[in-house]
Amino acid sequence: MHTRKHIVVIGGGVAGMESAIHLCDMGYEVTLVEKQDQLGGHVLKWDFLFPDHRPAYEITNELCPAVEEKANIKLQTEVKNIVKQNGHFEVALSDGEILTADALLVATGFDLFDAHKKEEYGYGIYDNVITAAELEERFQNKIPIRTAAGKKPARVGFVHCVGSRDEKVGNEYCSKVCCVTAVKQAMRVKESLPGCEVFCFYMDLRMFGRYFEDLYREAQEKWGVQFIRGRLSEAAEDIDHRIIVKLEDTLAGRPLRMAVDLLVLLTGFVPSEGTKRMAAMLNLPLGNDRFIKPSDEHLRRNLTPVPGVFVTGASSGPRSISESISDARAAALEIAAWFNHQTQHAVK
Amino acid sequence: MHTRKHIVVIGGGVAGMESAIHLCDMGYEVTLVEKQDQLGGHVLKWDFLFPDHRPAYEITNELCPAVEEKANIKLQTEVKNIVKQNGHFEVALSDGEILTADALLVATGFDLFDAHKKEEYGYGIYDNVITAAELEERFQNKIPIRTAAGKKPARVGFVHCVGSRDEKVGNEYCSKVCCVTAVKQAMRVKESLPGCEVFCFYMDLRMFGRYFEDLYREAQEKWGVQFIRGRLSEAAEDIDHRIIVKLEDTLAGRPLRMAVDLLVLLTGFVPSEGTKRMAAMLNLPLGNDRFIKPSDEHLRRNLTPVPGVFVTGASSGPRSISESISDARAAALEIAAWFNHQTQHAVK
Repeated sequence: MHTRKHIVVIGGGVAGMESAIHLCDMGYEVTLVEKQDQLGGHVLKWDFLFPDHRPAYEITNELCPAVEEKANIKLQTEVKNIVKQNGHFEVALSDGEILTADALLVATGFDLFDAHKKEEYGYGIYDNVITAAELEERFQNKIPIRTAAGKKPARVGFVHCVGSRDEKVGNEYCSKVCCVTAVKQAMRVKESLPGCEVFCFYMDLRMFGRYFEDLYREAQEKWGVQFIRGRLSEAAEDIDHRIIVKLEDTLAGRPLRMAVDLLVLLTGFVPSEGTKRMAAMLNLPLGNDRFIKPSDEHLRRNLTPVPGVFVTGASSGPRSISESISDARAAALEIAAWFNHQTQHAVK
Repeated sequence: MHTRKHIVVIGGGVAGMESAIHLCDMGYEVTLVEKQDQLGGHVLKWDFLFPDHRPAYEITNELCPAVEEKANIKLQTEVKNIVKQNGHFEVALSDGEILTADALLVATGFDLFDAHKKEEYGYGIYDNVITAAELEERFQNKIPIRTAAGKKPARVGFVHCVGSRDEKVGNEYCSKVCCVTAVKQAMRVKESLPGCEVFCFYMDLRMFGRYFEDLYREAQEKWGVQFIRGRLSEAAEDIDHRIIVKLEDTLAGRPLRMAVDLLVLLTGFVPSEGTKRMAAMLNLPLGNDRFIKPSDEHLRRNLTPVPGVFVTGASSGPRSISESISDARAAALEIAAWFNHQTQHAVK
């Protein structure tokens, strides 16, 4: 009797779910392990997506039921240990169960950079300094955008590259999607507070994706968002609880000091705790950005040098949702190709 | 007897080849139609790739033999007409053959923007204004970097965004990979001509990909490439055949005029003639960038609204090689899902 190959997918975000769906469709048995109490990952926390402003729940509404129908799902479960023996993986879970897997797919993704580490921006110190994720949560919960004192802000500032492209915090890489997230959120703030002045403090506007440039143009032309090139050196609170930002305006070529009522920090991507744990447990190589490094950045972006271990989504670097979905499918095919290769060699 | 589904892949670049390989592995019959006399597309013209400086032939050396082994290949062949009848496509080829296909995959990709259209940069007028593709060809053919008069250039300038982010030529989008290509080539010029001064004239440095930021840093710190923010307004030749460039240095906040011995234009992506023809022939919707618009930019990036017609690679917008490879696999799975869905409905 033919025993189906069993793949354990670790991580139930967009990439893990999409890979699991396609692996099931190819006839493999899949167990998806997710430490949270529901599937979806970061996308659960977004209100609407760029560049088309579609609601984020459309993504989870499509992927979650599909994967739940096809795969074995283990929620609120973590991988505690993995042992390889006789070509199989023994995967010990936090609930005591031990799964036997023929292949592993690491889809443990990213965490957002901890804004407390950029002390000079005052996150956790001043109430009117928040993160983009917190702003998104307000959008999602239909909470009006107000200062900590409950006033409509007259000026809102967005700080790009918080924890990205920053030697001081050891993250020299670009997090890719913060620029477009800031522009999206800046437009949303203008939409809900038309009188509010909105500023984006950026280094380079990395609007690399399809239609992103249109968003950047619309932000300026339709919504009057003001883009100021320069990195913030400091944010401090004044007696009225406004946030005084200091930067060098590198386009105007002079230091700039201004007050905003609310400062939003675009925190970048860092490898998640799960990604770090899996990399250590499985001895996977890392790039200098500390994300998992695949065997070949062009041809084998989902293969790792450890036989039977594959990687997908933001576990190997910052990625948009669209990119994670394509990457997840590529990973499913990489796994299938690996099994096929094994079978051919067994036959010979 | 079970008849295998037949898919015609139109375009034999990286995306078309990678899709074809995986479709064959899934058991489909695939015919790949390529108008050139060899497979490979644009990658044949690149010498080495970013961010790791690997030789481009490693990509074609892997993909070409694999697809040649598995798929039916028709070189020097164009699609002349497509008619849909009884749920099949009748694909008339330039050699008179008519293929019957169950699905079509459009992988006709991009062309480089025609630099002649930016008259003010003097391409085709001044001998010392060349394109990045022409510079790459010199690298590939080991032709030393010299001016038209055969002298070692003392100064080389790279112009980013030629035909990209430019309302004047009707291309408002970012072409995504020109920035990283310029930085890669600038380093290469410094490597072969250590005494040469190298300048990049840019608007935003869109080093969005993994390790791209490292390349940007290395260009500055190791190679001394000079980055000047501003768009060129004009390039004109002086009596010594040097190219005088005029731009506003937007960081220094003043107009800049300087002479370079060689000016390299980073021409952006436009839909290829084949992509335009396929879109018109099949009535596929286009984005405002005139590339093919898929049904869903997040979940269905390879599906078009025309049943049985799929799209992959740079036919739906600028993409790097790595991205095209992931996208090609995603397309293969999209096609498989579509056939499976049809079969399920037929059974019911």
